[in-house]
Amino acid sequence: MTDAGGSRPIFLLTDFGPSSLYPGVMKAVIATSAPGARIYDLSHAVRSFACLEGAMGLAQAWNWLPPDAVVVAVVDPGVGGRRRGLLVRAQDRWAVGPDNGLLTVCLREAGARALEIPHSWFDTAPSRTFHGRDVFAPLAARLALGWDPSEAWPVCRDPEQLSELIAQRSSRGWEGMIVAVDTFGNLLTNLPKDAVVGAPVTIRVGSARFDRVVQTYSDVDPGELLVYIGSGGFVEIGQREGRANETLGIGANEPVTVEYR
Amino acid sequence: MTDAGGSRPIFLLTDFGPSSLYPGVMKAVIATSAPGARIYDLSHAVRSFACLEGAMGLAQAWNWLPPDAVVVAVVDPGVGGRRRGLLVRAQDRWAVGPDNGLLTVCLREAGARALEIPHSWFDTAPSRTFHGRDVFAPLAARLALGWDPSEAWPVCRDPEQLSELIAQRSSRGWEGMIVAVDTFGNLLTNLPKDAVVGAPVTIRVGSARFDRVVQTYSDVDPGELLVYIGSGGFVEIGQREGRANETLGIGANEPVTVEYR
Amino acid sequence: MTDAGGSRPIFLLTDFGPSSLYPGVMKAVIATSAPGARIYDLSHAVRSFACLEGAMGLAQAWNWLPPDAVVVAVVDPGVGGRRRGLLVRAQDRWAVGPDNGLLTVCLREAGARALEIPHSWFDTAPSRTFHGRDVFAPLAARLALGWDPSEAWPVCRDPEQLSELIAQRSSRGWEGMIVAVDTFGNLLTNLPKDAVVGAPVTIRVGSARFDRVVQTYSDVDPGELLVYIGSGGFVEIGQREGRANETLGIGANEPVTVEYR
Repeated sequence: MTDAGGSRPIFLLTDFGPSSLYPGVMKAVIATSAPGARIYDLSHAVRSFACLEGAMGLAQAWNWLPPDAVVVAVVDPGVGGRRRGLLVRAQDRWAVGPDNGLLTVCLREAGARALEIPHSWFDTAPSRTFHGRDVFAPLAARLALGWDPSEAWPVCRDPEQLSELIAQRSSRGWEGMIVAVDTFGNLLTNLPKDAVVGAPVTIRVGSARFDRVVQTYSDVDPGELLVYIGSGGFVEIGQREGRANETLGIGANEPVTVEYR
Repeated sequence: MTDAGGSRPIFLLTDFGPSSLYPGVMKAVIATSAPGARIYDLSHAVRSFACLEGAMGLAQAWNWLPPDAVVVAVVDPGVGGRRRGLLVRAQDRWAVGPDNGLLTVCLREAGARALEIPHSWFDTAPSRTFHGRDVFAPLAARLALGWDPSEAWPVCRDPEQLSELIAQRSSRGWEGMIVAVDTFGNLLTNLPKDAVVGAPVTIRVGSARFDRVVQTYSDVDPGELLVYIGSGGFVEIGQREGRANETLGIGANEPVTVEYR
Repeated sequence: MTDAGGSRPIFLLTDFGPSSLYPGVMKAVIATSAPGARIYDLSHAVRSFACLEGAMGLAQAWNWLPPDAVVVAVVDPGVGGRRRGLLVRAQDRWAVGPDNGLLTVCLREAGARALEIPHSWFDTAPSRTFHGRDVFAPLAARLALGWDPSEAWPVCRDPEQLSELIAQRSSRGWEGMIVAVDTFGNLLTNLPKDAVVGAPVTIRVGSARFDRVVQTYSDVDPGELLVYIGSGGFVEIGQREGRANETLGIGANEPVTVEYR
């Protein structure tokens, strides 16, 4: 299935920063090979080299992408080294990127199939520092135009996955962590919705303790902290008309625990 | 009237920040429903929850939009609460967003018609924290494809408007304020062009006083402060090769007065 | 040659900042005149008024642009003053912008032809502070639709060029400088690849000295500084899993020397 322009829509997720020239250069490369392709920015604001934050961003966006989307994800601390390149087919979507766990959410889709990008693509790349431009963007352009290397490329049997993408269960509940902080100072965790619904729980993060999960900001008073199910399906900690990260003085990697009462 | 791709162009204005995943998710939703739609970022840099700044941004861009544009504006401190959702038809354009004054400029267009988005759209939304994704983006996609709910939806007779969008006249001139600061440190006011042309005026802001309005930066010496009509049709205070906000030590919400001499 | 939508792709490079409304307004203007045009952000993060940084950004992206691209570049400290407007034809590409050296890389293309934008375009502009919206964007839209003013417009025989875009040779090697710092803290120089390959060299920048040029980050240990050929074809100084600009305490305009051993 393709869009009106005759090609699949392409979505970019990188840690190049909103101030960077690099996403623009990737678009130039894609627009050169696939002049009809539509290219959308998913985000370029993943913290530098933060694969888990990138993987979580992709996890939050994944279910909302067009069914025929091509995702190009580049958070790539190992660029130019020996890490492999990955192409994942999940339902009718494609995702490309470095094999470092960034594509974990795609790999977990039922029926997902991981292929290894052949070494020749990297060996002939014009640079060893910008595979987003030299390997992943050109590949995405070809996929957008309908190319399918499923038969030609080797299956990757052991793609990297980030186990921290979903929090672990503990004997008394769940052991999670803060994965990212959004524009509003909300704290995004890796605790799935299931961790906090269906039974009374106590949630602890930093110096704060919560005995209930609310639905939205207006369920609490201005200035009050709250725990809610974020729009991406994970538990978040926020503050009505405030910035939870500053109020609590915490950020990424801090532990968040859930205990059944 | 529609563009070459068969659908109306969509413009997004939010306070999600240039570093956010959320505009990308909105684009994913729109591209899913309206694969041929062209989606453009107007701005995602409105300060968090700053409805007036968002309304002013829309006011500055409004006259430059394609005549068949669909605008999605989301600065939404009341998301998930009882605020209504608004759809405005102004000339051949559509604008959608929360009913909190953000769409004031559209409502002031001659012949503008405000409709209330039915409750059912919010009640069935997958989240109560991201109506940009769950309500406004899907609605925009349908509008872009040519859907017109004018007959089906109830008229909203009392949409919120922000009176501060345009400064007030005073006995001796005008009483305005700084609404936003741009990338270059220029101070954007809510004083319309008419407030400072046609008669000699004195403009006061912070510790500065100006007895003339110039046309552009090169009309003053390097380092000098200046008052000019900004490109959006409102009075601005800038500094040639400098940052007026830092030099004057002021920002949004500071008063600016105009006095006829 | 045009893309699937029947018009040339348009790429924007400005110093308006990733947080700015202005690029969005330029897109609105282009989409009004050329509804089928595809518009891509190359970058809006050039430092305010930093023409050399903008010119270098364009130089890094230039070879990756589609062969039929229209580039709109706006870093324009002289807006509204007496600086001329420039239109450059280089191969099958067009580039438009102020005549202040920003388009140096286009002017250096074999067979490039510079035209001066007629004064009437500026005299009739709605503003004297936003020629990106009032002159360059409308011109780009017309070029994207296939218009060619080569015969009608006067040739510009002395367009401004930035000699610093490429470092100078010295008696013992090269005298270069840092032109910009990227998202990762990498230091981009104006030293071309040729300055450091083919013979043993010593590179000095700030307090650091390098006796070898490596290919990529993983060629050095974590935390180590490195010199490599950046993806744009210029010499860069970086740090594996670190920020070279902070470690060295330096930024744009600092000298970088290359000495043959």
